[in-house]
Amino acid sequence: MIKFSNIKPDNFSLEFSSLAREKNQNNDKIISFGLGEPYFKPPDKLVKLVNKAINNGFNRYCHPQGLLSLRQQIAKKYSFLEENIVITAGAKPALSILLKILLHDKDEIIFFEPCFPSYRHQIHLANPKAKFIRFNLTKNFSINFSNLKKKINKKTKIILINSPHNPTGQVINEADFEDLLKLAKKHKFYIIIDGVYNDLIYKPYNYNYLDKNIIYFSSFSKVYGITGWRIGYLHSTNQQIINACKYIQMHVNTNTNTFLQKAISDYLKNDDFKIKFRSKLQKKTFLLEKIFKKNQIQINIPMGGFFAFICIKETNLMSDDFAFLLLKKYDVAVTPGVLFGKKWDNYVRICFAVNNKDFNQGINKFIQFYNEKKTQAINSKRIKPLSNKIS
Amino acid sequence: MIKFSNIKPDNFSLEFSSLAREKNQNNDKIISFGLGEPYFKPPDKLVKLVNKAINNGFNRYCHPQGLLSLRQQIAKKYSFLEENIVITAGAKPALSILLKILLHDKDEIIFFEPCFPSYRHQIHLANPKAKFIRFNLTKNFSINFSNLKKKINKKTKIILINSPHNPTGQVINEADFEDLLKLAKKHKFYIIIDGVYNDLIYKPYNYNYLDKNIIYFSSFSKVYGITGWRIGYLHSTNQQIINACKYIQMHVNTNTNTFLQKAISDYLKNDDFKIKFRSKLQKKTFLLEKIFKKNQIQINIPMGGFFAFICIKETNLMSDDFAFLLLKKYDVAVTPGVLFGKKWDNYVRICFAVNNKDFNQGINKFIQFYNEKKTQAINSKRIKPLSNKIS
Repeated sequence: MIKFSNIKPDNFSLEFSSLAREKNQNNDKIISFGLGEPYFKPPDKLVKLVNKAINNGFNRYCHPQGLLSLRQQIAKKYSFLEENIVITAGAKPALSILLKILLHDKDEIIFFEPCFPSYRHQIHLANPKAKFIRFNLTKNFSINFSNLKKKINKKTKIILINSPHNPTGQVINEADFEDLLKLAKKHKFYIIIDGVYNDLIYKPYNYNYLDKNIIYFSSFSKVYGITGWRIGYLHSTNQQIINACKYIQMHVNTNTNTFLQKAISDYLKNDDFKIKFRSKLQKKTFLLEKIFKKNQIQINIPMGGFFAFICIKETNLMSDDFAFLLLKKYDVAVTPGVLFGKKWDNYVRICFAVNNKDFNQGINKFIQFYNEKKTQAINSKRIKPLSNKIS
Repeated sequence: MIKFSNIKPDNFSLEFSSLAREKNQNNDKIISFGLGEPYFKPPDKLVKLVNKAINNGFNRYCHPQGLLSLRQQIAKKYSFLEENIVITAGAKPALSILLKILLHDKDEIIFFEPCFPSYRHQIHLANPKAKFIRFNLTKNFSINFSNLKKKINKKTKIILINSPHNPTGQVINEADFEDLLKLAKKHKFYIIIDGVYNDLIYKPYNYNYLDKNIIYFSSFSKVYGITGWRIGYLHSTNQQIINACKYIQMHVNTNTNTFLQKAISDYLKNDDFKIKFRSKLQKKTFLLEKIFKKNQIQINIPMGGFFAFICIKETNLMSDDFAFLLLKKYDVAVTPGVLFGKKWDNYVRICFAVNNKDFNQGINKFIQFYNEKKTQAINSKRIKPLSNKIS
C-alpha cells in the first residue's frame, strides 16, 4: 500500500541527463557526466548472440529462477551454486524482491549516505512500516565503525552496502568487510551487497560472499553498456530466501527475458570486453588524479566503477546550482550531490564512463568553471567585510 | 512483508508444461495443450526490428513511463491518451503495480473463479491485509449479477475481470460490462481489466475503457508468440494512478527493456499478423464445436483467446488425475481445472494455440481418452450397486 500524497517526483538524475542527451542530439554538444551509463554500444558479439537466441527459439516462458545456463555461468564466476541464484530484470528488481521478503514491520535497515537515491524509495515500497537509518560516510567516504555500532540494535535486520560505491567510487576493503560480517553474525542481521559495479573494481579483492548472512545482487548493465536491457541476478546461500524470491518472481514477473538470458550466458563463456573497459576506466582515474592535483582541487580517487564524487565547498555553491550553472555556461552535465543525501550538498558526482575526447574536454571545462567560482567565492568573502564596514 | 511459511510451490501449470516440453525435446512427441503460449515463432519482421533497434542504440535507460513512440501506438489503437499509459515488463508486473497502489489494509477485491492462478498470490504480495473475495462464475461461465451484488460493500475497492477469459475463453458482453461499470460508479470501486487476450476476440466488442473507474492492462506476449520477452502496458485516465505507477516503475524496475519498446512501436505501425492468428484460432473453435458435438461432449465454445475449459464430470476423474493419465497414456498435456479454483476440479483447460496437425491429433486423443474414461465410469456405477447387493 502506498499513499498518493507520498509520491513526489524524485527523478532529477534521470531527467536532467535525458535533457542533456536531448540537447546533445540537437547538436548542442553537451558533454554528459550525468547519468550512470557507459558511453559505448553493447559488444557486437553480444548483439549477435541476442539475434541467435531469438532465432533459436528462446522466446517463451522460462523458469522463474532463470535459465540454468546463465545461472551456471554466474555460479562459475563467483564460486556460487547455481541453485542459489535467481535471475532478475536488473539490479533494482533484485533488491526490491529481497527487501519485500526480509523487511517486516518495525525492522530496521541501515544504509550509507551518500547513496543511490532509489534505496529509500525501494525500502518504503517494500514495507512502509520498516524504519530506515541513514548513516553518513566519513569525509574520505569510509565507515566509522564505532559510530555504526551505536546504530545497531535488536531490530536491525539489514545493512545495505554498495561497492564499488555510487556516487563516491570507493570500494570496501577486506578488513572492513570482515568487520561488518562479524557484526552481522553477532547481531543476526543480513548484509545486502549491491555489486552492480563489481566487475569494474580496478584492484581485485577477495570477499566471502558465501556466508549465510550475506546476500549479493548485481547486473550486467554497467559493464556491457546495456542499462536499458534490464537483466541482473541475486545470490543467497539461504534456501528459504531463494524460494521466496522464486515465488515472488513467479507471480510478479513470470521470468526475466528469456533470449537475453541465453545470449548473456553464451557471451560470458568468452568475454574480454569488461577487462578492457575496466582498464580504460582506471587510466581515467590516473588522469583525474593528475589534473585535480595540478589544480589543487581535492579528490578521492575512485577505486572502482565510473563515478567520482567531488567536493565543491570552495566554490560556495550548492550542488544543484553548481550543476545548473556548469551546464548553462560550459555544456557539461554533472549530478548534484544533494540527490545522494541531504548532507552532501557540497559535492557533485561525475560519471567518467565517456569517450576520451569528451573526458578531456569535459574535465577541463569542469576545472575552469570550478576555478572561476572558487575565485568569485574568495573575492566575495573579501568584499563582504569591507561592505560591512561601509554600511 | 511476506512470511516464509506462507510460500508453497504453486507452479504446476508452468512445471507440468515444461516437463511436457522437455519430453517433446526428447522426441517423445508429446502434444502440449498445457501452457498459455502460442506455438509459433515471433514474426520475422518483428525480429528484424529488434535487431535494428539494438543497432540504432536503443540500449540505454529510457523514461520509466515508457517510450513515447510505443505509447503513441497503443494510444492510437484504443483511443487512449499517451500520457495515460505506462509500459511494463509484461501484464503481471502491470497488475502487481496497480494492486500495490490501490489495495489498502482491509480493502476488498473481488475476482471470478475459475481464474488465472497468479491473481490471489499477486493480491497477497501487494497487501496481505487486503481481503480477496472469490466469486464463482455460473456453469456457462457468466456472472450472476444478483449474487455478485451481495458481495459488494463499502470496502469493495476492486473487481478484477479477465476478458477474453483464462481458462474459459469467454468474453464479457457489452451489457454485462455496462452493468459492472454502473455498479463501480455507484459503489465507488475500480474495475481492473486483464486484457492480455484482447487482440484475440473473434467478434469485435465496443467497451468504454475511458471511464475513470476502469483500469486496463494488457501485453504483447500472446499475440506475437513472445511470452518470454516480457512487455506489456497499463492504462488509466486517473492521473494520480499513473503518477504512482511511474513512481513504482522508476524505483522498482527503472524502465521496461528499451529496444523491445522501440521494435514493437515500429512493428505496430503495420501489423497484419494478429488478424491472421485470430482467424486461425476461430477456425479451431469451429472444429472444436463440431468434434465435441459429434461425440456428445458438452463444451462452451470460446469467443476469444486460445483456451477452452471442458467439463470432465462424466469421466468421474478429478482434474489432476485426468491430466496425469491423459499425458501418461496419450502423450497429451492439459491443465487441471483445480488450478483455477477449488470448485473447478471437474474441468480441464486446453490451450488450442497449436499447429493444425497437433490440434487434430491432440483433440482426437483427448476425445478417445474422455470416452474411454466415461465408459469406465458408467460401468463402475453399474457394478457398484450390484456388488452392494452381494455384500
